[in-house]
Amino acid sequence: MAFDDPFGNDTAETRTAIMRATYEALIEHGYENLTIQRIGDEFPKSKSLIYQHYDGKDEVLVELLEFLLDHFETQMPKPDDGNAHARLLAMIEYVLAPEPDAERVALTEVMVELRGQAPHNETFEAYFTANDGRFRRELTDIVERGVEEGVYRSVDADAVAEFLLTSISGGTVRRATAGDAVDLAAVRREIETYLDARLLRDGVA
Amino acid sequence: MAFDDPFGNDTAETRTAIMRATYEALIEHGYENLTIQRIGDEFPKSKSLIYQHYDGKDEVLVELLEFLLDHFETQMPKPDDGNAHARLLAMIEYVLAPEPDAERVALTEVMVELRGQAPHNETFEAYFTANDGRFRRELTDIVERGVEEGVYRSVDADAVAEFLLTSISGGTVRRATAGDAVDLAAVRREIETYLDARLLRDGVA
Repeated sequence: MAFDDPFGNDTAETRTAIMRATYEALIEHGYENLTIQRIGDEFPKSKSLIYQHYDGKDEVLVELLEFLLDHFETQMPKPDDGNAHARLLAMIEYVLAPEPDAERVALTEVMVELRGQAPHNETFEAYFTANDGRFRRELTDIVERGVEEGVYRSVDADAVAEFLLTSISGGTVRRATAGDAVDLAAVRREIETYLDARLLRDGVA
Repeated sequence: MAFDDPFGNDTAETRTAIMRATYEALIEHGYENLTIQRIGDEFPKSKSLIYQHYDGKDEVLVELLEFLLDHFETQMPKPDDGNAHARLLAMIEYVLAPEPDAERVALTEVMVELRGQAPHNETFEAYFTANDGRFRRELTDIVERGVEEGVYRSVDADAVAEFLLTSISGGTVRRATAGDAVDLAAVRREIETYLDARLLRDGVA
């Protein structure tokens, strides 16, 4: 699945250049040993630009997460035709892509590594709580649209969205941390079985 | 839900004392800044005992993960009466417990933090790959027993187990990293809806 380089188009712009430097410094040093100084070492312009923009490494890293996630979302297919169910299946297929390219893999690994900091870091806990909420709202909206369209049964859309988000998060984390052992194709098929049984009205879609 | 202190019974024993020291040093310093020296600082006996047993911090940490997971498993309810479905529900209820106590929360946080190292650390990737495999086999066994008992339909037990493991992992990671925002009761209910639709034969259980 094609996935553009998040830093590819716009490196002349200061924010994008800082994001790339942060990403490269994080890969090289790991979270604990990352410093603003080390981000500056990867930055082709004046380091003072970084100090002007950010108070500390966690602030830069949260912006990196937002930057990467925005990029991830712009790449997500959003079929205009088709009902809510087609849109939901396209989203799940995209997030749990069978063969992600190197950029996708790297993004997922950064997310999982920084998520691992959240249990003892309030900045990251707040970020991932907000991020989960945003993704869950998107899923809830799609399910509610399906109910309005008459494609889905009248269900508790929040509960369905919470479960889908949890399964998708589990798939993402397991792929980044238990590698080839994870059969994501089976996970996608079982999610579809769940959706068929839980959501689809007989004879529709 | 009651959960015994993993280090509670047996601190006179050297291995348990090393495990406790490792756990406390990890909480205090974080993974990147953990050293065998710092584990030794938490250890009431001669530091040379640690150097004799372990080549480096990753080796001690993998043993800590195994130690905590073994403890977690000994605490898991395994109803002798009841069919495979009752056992499966008890396991899911235990792992996604509504109100875990402080020991459980701490264990989950250590697992999630070290899982976050796996994308760039082969030792942890190997550990979590093996650990996922072990848990998935347990789930597969229960599903296959349910099929033999006639409680479950004849299904692809591996695919069901893969999906359950993924959902449970997602729930565990999200609880440790996005805190109160996660509605695990909804996740458990939706898992049960999936199991009803996917596994249960009409009129049984």
